[in-house]
Amino acid sequence: MARPRRNIELVRQKILEEAKATILELGWESLTMVTLAKRLNMSVGNLYKFFDSKDELFLAIFTDFHAGLNQQLQDHLHEESLDEPHLGKLIDIYFHYANSQFHLYELVMHPPILYKDFVDTPLQPMAEDMRKETLRTMDLGKRAVAGALRQKGVQVDERELVARFVYFFNSVHGLLLTMHSRIMPYILFEPDAMIPLQLAMIQKIVLSSAPFSQELAAQS
Amino acid sequence: MARPRRNIELVRQKILEEAKATILELGWESLTMVTLAKRLNMSVGNLYKFFDSKDELFLAIFTDFHAGLNQQLQDHLHEESLDEPHLGKLIDIYFHYANSQFHLYELVMHPPILYKDFVDTPLQPMAEDMRKETLRTMDLGKRAVAGALRQKGVQVDERELVARFVYFFNSVHGLLLTMHSRIMPYILFEPDAMIPLQLAMIQKIVLSSAPFSQELAAQS
Repeated sequence: MARPRRNIELVRQKILEEAKATILELGWESLTMVTLAKRLNMSVGNLYKFFDSKDELFLAIFTDFHAGLNQQLQDHLHEESLDEPHLGKLIDIYFHYANSQFHLYELVMHPPILYKDFVDTPLQPMAEDMRKETLRTMDLGKRAVAGALRQKGVQVDERELVARFVYFFNSVHGLLLTMHSRIMPYILFEPDAMIPLQLAMIQKIVLSSAPFSQELAAQS
Repeated sequence: MARPRRNIELVRQKILEEAKATILELGWESLTMVTLAKRLNMSVGNLYKFFDSKDELFLAIFTDFHAGLNQQLQDHLHEESLDEPHLGKLIDIYFHYANSQFHLYELVMHPPILYKDFVDTPLQPMAEDMRKETLRTMDLGKRAVAGALRQKGVQVDERELVARFVYFFNSVHGLLLTMHSRIMPYILFEPDAMIPLQLAMIQKIVLSSAPFSQELAAQS
């Protein structure tokens, strides 16, 4: 007898949560279908009924990570009234979302498999979902930067908007990695105390009045 | 008969260069004493006469990476006349030094072994050298930022100076990682074209007139 669809979804969700907990605890490399089944008190055969492979788990985790982030960003993105503290709040959300589940963030940023690897495989539809949620994160980020610039009356063209968005992304990425780096204790005494200031500096340049591309053109 | 000291140094240097080439080509994980000996047309036994272990190779490579960077920074650091384009040049040197040998940079930034692991081992003196060169890189970086701020007439206290230096470090680190990330093709069409603008944005905030810590204090 086939299981009701709703039950399948509930079990898949439970498996997903346990897979995420395993990655956060032990890292992606240590996640195997066997260890996962054991942690879930499930037979490996039963686990394979819900997820065909570690690749499928990867896709579900990746998509879930972005969907959760997108939900939080969406909830706080009111483009009509995006002033500076408001953008600061969005930057905070992004930073803390990644920081509080760093191993998942690392996995998503250094994916062992890429979208193109799933093309023409049975997992392509799931890969499409992953891609869609990722693009949505980027779209929300760009819209946040664009909205805050508009609110502040700063005119930038599309190239400059992309540059500022990439800049925001790089800088927060670098901050996250440095904070979790093993060499951090050699660089700073109290790294966490530095975070608000670093995020404020990033925000400042994202909202800077003068277009950087013009300045750069003037220099050369 | 003992080899003359000079010859030993020459061979060690040759081994070091080949080890670096192997890492750049294949990554740190793929470097073994056996593959290295083969690439050098040397017996493994002979190689062990020059380096006792992969750990010792790691220390030599790490120190060499920082020493090479320090040399270049030192050559261009004229603290009395550190204007903006001059700081820009130093930022460029740092970025391109790391970018042109990215696998070595990655190794140094995510070291498999730390200074503390060598304390009370026969390799401690080499680990001291590694530490000294690393601290020297940070010192040169901080002095560059401090000099440029002085030249521009911007007054900052020690905490703010550290914050700006850490910011510079994070942002360039993030840029380097994003540029070499496998997901980059999904984010940008021509990532390399973005580099000068990104470095200019980083420089701008490092030299910003208003102290960030005051701004932050005023907000809260």
